[in-house]
Amino acid sequence: MLLARVGTGLRSETVRRTNLSVIIRELHFGGPQSRSALVGRTELTRSAIRSLISELVSADLVAEVRAAPVGVPGRPSTMVCPNAEGAVVLALDITVDSLAAALIGLGGTILASARVDRPPTHLEPSEIVADLVSLAEPILREPAAAGRFIGIGVAVVGVVRRSDGLVSMAPNLGWREIPLGRLVAAAFDGDAPVAVANEADLGALAELRRGAAVGADDVLFVSGEVGVGGGVVVDGRPMIGAAGYGGEIGHMPVNPDGLPCRCGSIGCWETEVGEGALLRHAGRRPDGGREAVDAVLADAAAGLPRAVAALDEVGRWLGVGLAGLVNVFDPELIVLGGFFGRILPRVGELVDRELDRRALAAPRSLVCVVPAKLGVDAPMIGAGELAMEPLLADPARWLLPRRPRLELAGA
Amino acid sequence: MLLARVGTGLRSETVRRTNLSVIIRELHFGGPQSRSALVGRTELTRSAIRSLISELVSADLVAEVRAAPVGVPGRPSTMVCPNAEGAVVLALDITVDSLAAALIGLGGTILASARVDRPPTHLEPSEIVADLVSLAEPILREPAAAGRFIGIGVAVVGVVRRSDGLVSMAPNLGWREIPLGRLVAAAFDGDAPVAVANEADLGALAELRRGAAVGADDVLFVSGEVGVGGGVVVDGRPMIGAAGYGGEIGHMPVNPDGLPCRCGSIGCWETEVGEGALLRHAGRRPDGGREAVDAVLADAAAGLPRAVAALDEVGRWLGVGLAGLVNVFDPELIVLGGFFGRILPRVGELVDRELDRRALAAPRSLVCVVPAKLGVDAPMIGAGELAMEPLLADPARWLLPRRPRLELAGA
Repeated sequence: MLLARVGTGLRSETVRRTNLSVIIRELHFGGPQSRSALVGRTELTRSAIRSLISELVSADLVAEVRAAPVGVPGRPSTMVCPNAEGAVVLALDITVDSLAAALIGLGGTILASARVDRPPTHLEPSEIVADLVSLAEPILREPAAAGRFIGIGVAVVGVVRRSDGLVSMAPNLGWREIPLGRLVAAAFDGDAPVAVANEADLGALAELRRGAAVGADDVLFVSGEVGVGGGVVVDGRPMIGAAGYGGEIGHMPVNPDGLPCRCGSIGCWETEVGEGALLRHAGRRPDGGREAVDAVLADAAAGLPRAVAALDEVGRWLGVGLAGLVNVFDPELIVLGGFFGRILPRVGELVDRELDRRALAAPRSLVCVVPAKLGVDAPMIGAGELAMEPLLADPARWLLPRRPRLELAGA
Repeated sequence: MLLARVGTGLRSETVRRTNLSVIIRELHFGGPQSRSALVGRTELTRSAIRSLISELVSADLVAEVRAAPVGVPGRPSTMVCPNAEGAVVLALDITVDSLAAALIGLGGTILASARVDRPPTHLEPSEIVADLVSLAEPILREPAAAGRFIGIGVAVVGVVRRSDGLVSMAPNLGWREIPLGRLVAAAFDGDAPVAVANEADLGALAELRRGAAVGADDVLFVSGEVGVGGGVVVDGRPMIGAAGYGGEIGHMPVNPDGLPCRCGSIGCWETEVGEGALLRHAGRRPDGGREAVDAVLADAAAGLPRAVAALDEVGRWLGVGLAGLVNVFDPELIVLGGFFGRILPRVGELVDRELDRRALAAPRSLVCVVPAKLGVDAPMIGAGELAMEPLLADPARWLLPRRPRLELAGA
């Protein structure tokens, strides 16, 4: 691996911590497996695996379960399982038209969840955070929430600075420079770490770990909603940029003399392929929202020419932008989410034609375009993954007596 | 660090190898330094450092030198230095109008080098490889070439598959599907590993390690020549894509109804900002080459209106494309190479204006645009870094008796 900077060396306590992390990640991503499988996948020795697992079992993060024999004679093998209730996170999602909360356990198990619609109007951040607290309250009273609490992850439709969860801009919410991380931390237990990230970035993370892109290392996730969101995975790592603002592929200039974009620029890709563009081409008000989009898709399915033409126009521009992104990123997989995933069966040929015309032959020949798998919950699941990261990165920090469950501030 | 895949665990021999690698990288990138500095930077213990350095000294990769006291009383401190002649690589560079070869030692020391112009006509790959052999021959006879030979690195103006050095397309050379890695290996000692990569990618690597981007983790390198090349560094690692074709930012569609591009598409960024675009705007033949570009730059410096307007037009489009790339990558630094670096002082304000208009405010406010430092040799220096990588990644493999110097095939 070519590196720009030099890493630090390995000392013996680092080795133990790193190996605990490798095992907990393996179980969190891959689910229950035998010790032999762990030996094979981690390349650690059998005795190292035994001692590391026994530490994780004592800390209640992992359980060893005798698997039922499946018609095979002989001793049933012992499976090492992540203990979902041994470590839990609260995942929150703020979209243009809904709010969601979920309690997610180690291994990615959704222990409880709730989603409510919200009017697509501009609301004060404090109102939205209060609504999230109401949504999360019953979830945090579940018995499963008694597990070791790792932190809170928040997905939001906006441009986010990763270091402190500042939302620098969220045009669909009417927000600018909102310290969302701080607001959420204050509304919940002030001690729990809060990590905030862009919704499309987190959708990409979820699809990568648990959805359409499992096993892939270079992935482009493109989600069409009111805005066009992107999450990019480079060599197995989500690309976030210098301050966490990376992946705003909806704001590539594809038509410099085109329409004004909500971001203040002109002719961004979003102005040609977002929900507003679909509605505009279909002769509707661009701000019609989810119901209007559903109506256009239904009209197109029924063969109404104007809706079909609108879909074709979006499909063509989708292909133009994807061609540029194929040249820039050379991904092995493009995962289309939001309404892009829904229209892919209808516009796939048009997308392919633009890719053939406009992308360089070599990367073009290697890339597959597929719909997302996790649907509307992808960003929420990704927020859970983000919140679980401190445990995955350094489980040794958590091999201590359990912390009590998360309490709501003032409760 | 968020990961998609799980790494393998650490066994005790891995730890030694990793720590040797950390130290050799530190010395290769950072140059001579004291043991105390190495303790601080690698976070290894003093005794671990001592024993690792003694291994590297025995293998002649590192030397310990008593530093001359600089007016300070007391014992002079001992500096640990990379031994340039202890490990050497051959770096080759194939550009549109020149060929270059260099012998580069550990620590990045250029021990010998040569560059010759070549006519910008299409030549058979075998002819170019033969010319490279002639250029390299005297260099490989230098006494310094007697060091441990790590491999050959090749920079080429084309789209390259990293795994085997296949050049899938190099329009400026008239090449398609050329097995350059295999041709170079056969022309030189067939045993030496040969690594081939795109010229702009390697220019970016060189600027990152030894030029304008030292210390930065998220960097966009944009080079303007006949084509527009890009090298992208994400979180300290050069982004190469699934098969090594990534970073072709010259082929983003910025004007989908624009001019035909050499790649077969329409309205790529390159058609608006490459050398051809500059010459076209200046009323010259687009294929005039380096001399014609120099003439336009001289005319613009003398204030000739048509040349000034041509530069302004390129500057404006440069800003348009960079704005999109800022939104996509959120880099901390944009390094402009080739003639973009030369025109930056004249068009900087126009570039800034387009960035202000078109890039999202948050990533825009963080990014700096600077000219490249290493000039025409950057890709060759990057080719040397690429060739040295096997030693940097696992020096333990090289702590063996020295291999004899590289011999030319048939020599």
